[in-house]
This record gives sequence, structure tokens and C-alpha cells, in this order.
Amino acid sequence: MRVLYHTPLHPGCRKVRLQLQEKSLAFELKTEQTWQRREGFLRLNPAGEVPVLVEDSAVIAEAPVISEFLEEAYPEIDLLGTDAFERAETRRLVWWFDAKFHEEVTRNLVDEKILKRLMRSGNPDSQAIRCGHANIGYHLAYIAWLCDRRTWLAGDSFSLADIAAAAQLSAVDYLGDVPWEDVPGAKDWYARVKSRPSMRGILAENIPGFPPPDHYADLDF
Amino acid sequence: MRVLYHTPLHPGCRKVRLQLQEKSLAFELKTEQTWQRREGFLRLNPAGEVPVLVEDSAVIAEAPVISEFLEEAYPEIDLLGTDAFERAETRRLVWWFDAKFHEEVTRNLVDEKILKRLMRSGNPDSQAIRCGHANIGYHLAYIAWLCDRRTWLAGDSFSLADIAAAAQLSAVDYLGDVPWEDVPGAKDWYARVKSRPSMRGILAENIPGFPPPDHYADLDF
Repeated sequence: MRVLYHTPLHPGCRKVRLQLQEKSLAFELKTEQTWQRREGFLRLNPAGEVPVLVEDSAVIAEAPVISEFLEEAYPEIDLLGTDAFERAETRRLVWWFDAKFHEEVTRNLVDEKILKRLMRSGNPDSQAIRCGHANIGYHLAYIAWLCDRRTWLAGDSFSLADIAAAAQLSAVDYLGDVPWEDVPGAKDWYARVKSRPSMRGILAENIPGFPPPDHYADLDF
Repeated sequence: MRVLYHTPLHPGCRKVRLQLQEKSLAFELKTEQTWQRREGFLRLNPAGEVPVLVEDSAVIAEAPVISEFLEEAYPEIDLLGTDAFERAETRRLVWWFDAKFHEEVTRNLVDEKILKRLMRSGNPDSQAIRCGHANIGYHLAYIAWLCDRRTWLAGDSFSLADIAAAAQLSAVDYLGDVPWEDVPGAKDWYARVKSRPSMRGILAENIPGFPPPDHYADLDF
């Protein structure tokens, strides 16, 4: 059986979950509270980070590594594109959301508002939160700009770029911190993403003590 | 003609340069001082970051995206490995050096000691420098541990993992900040890397006002 170790709201874990679902690959989800540094988990990944995928007896850690592995091992449902240039464009956007959006938005909002409390590692930094709110608008505008020119973020087909963006945005949306009404083009894209069966597990997530806002799981938000 | 925009000492640029050389792909190298935010360069990559590869009329930005593109477009000389699990192991180590080593070592030493002066963006942070020196030992020990079990970092063949590690370590070595004598196994690995023709350009690099130590380009260091 394929097992994915994850932490709720973690965008890298959400990305791999969505990718597994889109590729119709069955898996068991195990929650790992990485900050507890459980010995059995550290034996799997000495870096102590999620996501970790265990498949046959192989252990694959780190979201970007797992993503490339899944595309190579299971090419039947392709989420990158057909030629090298198309795939480079998909990966450019994956990198944009994994690195840039994460650094400028998700880290400032999700990590500050929820992760710090779960880990009991200090108080939210209000300046970081202000930065996160200021930055998210540019990213939503970029999504709308891309969708004005393309069906999905990287081109004609739903791809790992849409998955990477949805992984970040769904985590921020769990806090109710995405100003969807300000950017209709981005909202329309996210409505299409939300209606995909692969999103069900993520939209059903509920962290004890931190319930999501009503619109979080609502397909007609 | 293929053009690579780079900044001297930038590990992501060094990684792509080494990869192009190892794959015997000709390219012209253009130096970009990204902090000057030159308009012609921003048109190529609005994020304003190096490396940027221009090939035919396609523009490919960000080191991890360029690396995957080169492996897909030019598979004749393969730097990832043959099966999906082998490739996952190579990518795990690439990620280790690109992200973890960079964050814990290179950023604390190269960015603080040289980049800040070139960019005129403040004084070196002595606490960061102390962290960089403290962290590098663990990474050298890890390289030695891997080379005790394998010919090269990811397995029997020289791979993108060795390139990613050399890209980071050569930049730190330019400052004379790698304690090679403390970890003979890592020194032996780097001596083998240094003797490869692909390293010539990087070992010949010389930043005006910041000459490297004598051993930097010496194959018998």
C-alpha cells in the first residue's frame, strides 16, 4: 500500500495529495505532527519534514522530488505537458507558487496564524501578516491575467501548475484570507478547481480548534 | 546561439553552467548584475532573477526549471539516472544542496560576505556568518558518508547531485571558508569534481576586488 505522511494545511502535502488524486493513485494518508520529532518518522526522513511518500519499500521525501517521481513513474495521466518547452512553462509556474507565493503569502499568513499556535512556538508576527495580505493581491491578479489568455494556468490543460497554486491558495482560504471578490478572474479559476473530485479530501479537512469559514468547502462561494 | 544570463558566484547559475558543460552544450555566458534591474533583462524574466537560459526564442528562468528542461531536451548525456527511484534519489540530493545547504551555509557566508558588498545593501551579519561556519561541517560529513558507500553522491555515476553540491561548495570555497582538511572524504570527492573539464570556467572566475584564495583553482589543493 502507498502511504503519504502529511500535516494538515501544509501546501507541499496538499500538492502531492492533489497530484495522487488526479492521477487516480490510491494512497493511505497518515498525519504526522513533525514538530514532535517522532523517532519512527525520523527514521523515514532524517530531515523530519513532510510530505514523505512510502511506495513499495522506497521512501521519497520532499514535495518537488515526489512530484517529479510521480510524473515519471505514472505517466498515463500527464500533469506536465507534452514537449520540453510546455513542461518548462508548467514547471516555471509550479516554482512560482511553491517558492514565491509560499514565501510572500502562505508563510506570512498560515505559518504565523496557525502553525505557530499548533507548534506553540511564539506569537503571530503582525508585520508578517500585513505583508501576506499586501502580497496576495498581486498573485491573484497574475492568476486572472493567465486565465485571460489560457484555459488553465500553464495552457490548455489542467496541470501541476494549477495543483501547486490550489495547494497554496486552499491553505490560505482555510483562514478566510483570500479576497476572492476583488479578483473575479482568479475566483472563477478557483471555482473550477474546487469542483474537481481531487479537491474533496482537502475541502473536507478540519483542524480541531481551528474550524474553516463556511465558504471554504462551498463550491458556490 | 544559446545564451545563459548569470551572476558570478551564484550557486544556481553555477549549477546550470556545469550541467551545460557536462552535456557538451555550447552556450554564451552573459553577466547580469540583477540588482541593477536592467530593463532588457526584466523583459526576459520579470522576476529579475538569474539564471535565465535563452534557447531558440524560448526563455527559461529559475535554476530547477532549467535543469529539468535540459535533462528532457538533451537526454543523450543523462545526469539523473535510469529508473524513477534512482532519479528520485538524485533529485533528493539536488534538493538537499539547492535548498538546505544553500539556506544553512551559502546564504550565511557568500551572501553576507560578498553579495551584500556588491549590492551595497548593508554590512555582513556576524551571527549569520557564525551559523554558516557551524553548519558547513555537518554537510561535509554527509558528503563523506555518502562517498564511503557510493562512487558519487547519488550512486555509481556522476550526476546532477554532484553538480548541485559542487555549485554550492565552489562558491563557499571562493571565500576560503570550506574546512577541507577536517573531512578528508569530502575533500577527496571535491578533488575528483575539480578535475572535470566542466569545472574549468568556474575555477577561472575572478571577481574584481575579491580575488579567490590560491587553493581555489588548484587541482591539488
